Amino acid sequence: MEENYMKLALDLAKQGEGQTESNPLVGAVVVKDGQIVGMGAHLKYGEAHAEVHAINMAGSHAMGADIYVTLEPCSHYGKTPPCAELIINSGIKRVFVAMRDPNPLVAGRGISMIEEAGIEVKEGILADQAEKLNEKFLHFMRTGLPYVTLKAAASLDGKTATSTGDSKWITSEAARQDAQQYRKTHQSILVGVGTVIADNPSLTCRLPNVTKQPVRVILDTALSIPEDAQVICDQAAPTWIFTTARADEEKKKRLSAFGVNIFTLETERIQVPDVLKILAEEGIMSVYVEGGSAVHGSFVKEGCFQEIIFYFAPKLIGGLHAPSLISGEGFQSMKDVPLLQFTDITQIGRDIKLTAKPINE
Amino acid sequence: MEENYMKLALDLAKQGEGQTESNPLVGAVVVKDGQIVGMGAHLKYGEAHAEVHAINMAGSHAMGADIYVTLEPCSHYGKTPPCAELIINSGIKRVFVAMRDPNPLVAGRGISMIEEAGIEVKEGILADQAEKLNEKFLHFMRTGLPYVTLKAAASLDGKTATSTGDSKWITSEAARQDAQQYRKTHQSILVGVGTVIADNPSLTCRLPNVTKQPVRVILDTALSIPEDAQVICDQAAPTWIFTTARADEEKKKRLSAFGVNIFTLETERIQVPDVLKILAEEGIMSVYVEGGSAVHGSFVKEGCFQEIIFYFAPKLIGGLHAPSLISGEGFQSMKDVPLLQFTDITQIGRDIKLTAKPINE
Repeated sequence: MEENYMKLALDLAKQGEGQTESNPLVGAVVVKDGQIVGMGAHLKYGEAHAEVHAINMAGSHAMGADIYVTLEPCSHYGKTPPCAELIINSGIKRVFVAMRDPNPLVAGRGISMIEEAGIEVKEGILADQAEKLNEKFLHFMRTGLPYVTLKAAASLDGKTATSTGDSKWITSEAARQDAQQYRKTHQSILVGVGTVIADNPSLTCRLPNVTKQPVRVILDTALSIPEDAQVICDQAAPTWIFTTARADEEKKKRLSAFGVNIFTLETERIQVPDVLKILAEEGIMSVYVEGGSAVHGSFVKEGCFQEIIFYFAPKLIGGLHAPSLISGEGFQSMKDVPLLQFTDITQIGRDIKLTAKPINE
Repeated sequence: MEENYMKLALDLAKQGEGQTESNPLVGAVVVKDGQIVGMGAHLKYGEAHAEVHAINMAGSHAMGADIYVTLEPCSHYGKTPPCAELIINSGIKRVFVAMRDPNPLVAGRGISMIEEAGIEVKEGILADQAEKLNEKFLHFMRTGLPYVTLKAAASLDGKTATSTGDSKWITSEAARQDAQQYRKTHQSILVGVGTVIADNPSLTCRLPNVTKQPVRVILDTALSIPEDAQVICDQAAPTWIFTTARADEEKKKRLSAFGVNIFTLETERIQVPDVLKILAEEGIMSVYVEGGSAVHGSFVKEGCFQEIIFYFAPKLIGGLHAPSLISGEGFQSMKDVPLLQFTDITQIGRDIKLTAKPINE
């Protein structure tokens, strides 16, 4: 039964997807004498936590009850008072927690507070599923760096365009629509300036019910972005440009006047780890890298990714000089190539989506 | 029930896989008063057909019985007398046939003979499965050309080696083992001379119970194959080389002395359709093309393939100059790229196997 209640709490948590950033998704269920008396989820950043909703719903039934929470209750005063305190004051007798919160502000202190108040705590129920639920948040909390997803679409022979540069369209409408969902589940979308020049994309999420558009991050060493690009002019989402000392100062000013946020790095070339560090400092927990192939190449060579999502169309483009999925410098020797593992294989319309992750992540 | 009996006949037919070439796989079941009284399959080229075995097993029970056959009974004297005649003489009352035999020597004549003898014939039971069972044979009979399967292995970003040429190994042992089965189910293995020079492969099927090794076909415009290559020296299977007028006549003689069969084309370059035509004339019904990428490129550009089998390893090699799955000239415009359809997706160990076929095949 413990797992059933925790499963319910996880299902409740999921309902807040895309609404809670930069807070994690959390669900809670209060059970008294084998009956569910309270249910809650964290649904909006800055508003009540899951435990608060669930204990409120339980009312006086919370006294002597069990609570199931998908993440360790918080121990600190943030936007709301600590949930550990609320649990203690509610008269709850036992607390089931799927996993600890690696957030340095919590990190076991929530559980300690509850245990010190004489309440029994059991950890680790459906921990894997709880981990999966907040993988981006947890990665950010553990490493201090954003969770990076590399996305690309290609023909089955790995080409992203023909040798003449024709790429419209390789994958089907269904696959392109599927790829939009990840714009919703990441806090930023990153591309190289080459993609902006070639395609002039809006880089916004066009799904319904998107309350907050992801930040558009452009890597642009020489600040060669066209000033009439959609990402500069359309004001549809924040745009951040990473550039170097090669950038023209006047152009920087003009772009800034459009509200574009410009980060000038001190290195000659843009280094991916530096970009990720700055994004983290700006509170960006997740990055959806949409290319092009040289940008992907840099992330791959530096080992700066947690997930890849590739769409393959059932087509063979061929061509010795047709651009392929990942370019850049690449690895020289097979023994240096890191092994990933496939995590998902899905047919999307006529195309296939393959998802993989580094093995030691 | 009709489908159940035909399914059994199909299962029997499959047991002869790899043993009957260049005959198709055929199974037969004789049923009398709801009881199976005879079962048979064609198991060896030149020996008894499925109907013969099944009717022999049925003995006197064949009188007044039904027979289920996965392919139209033959009407001609080949290595054995016509099965249509045997069915008529056996006293069988009804004949169920999954599909007609497109072999010009049969092509409906078997069915006509039986019907003209006053026996009821029903066609089309599990026709799709019967079609699949002998797809290579049927393609050959219909088009007069061999069934071509392109096989390749790459990293998930479509690279077949690093930029320095290191390719050992991209896919796992399990995937490489899996790929061996197709050497058993094709009558020939085709590679470009570049593959022979780079890897000096034996190009034999190393699975147990291989009674007949496929013919090794090498495309070699200038006859630059090393004379000490395994495919020349090991005598493990027939080796056929396609070359052009650029070939050195003395070298041709030396290779012929090793038993190598040399086909000299009149064109300046080797044209895939010409090769397939000659292979068909030599009785080769199926070709397993193992590369390299330029050879695959020629087959793709000419539209000369019926199936592709790609293995993808969960690795990202990267590199602008790393070789990719299909090179050659390639298509210039996306609208010229033929659409395939995925027919199978299988995880083989840590790798993935994707199978696709042209849509109008």
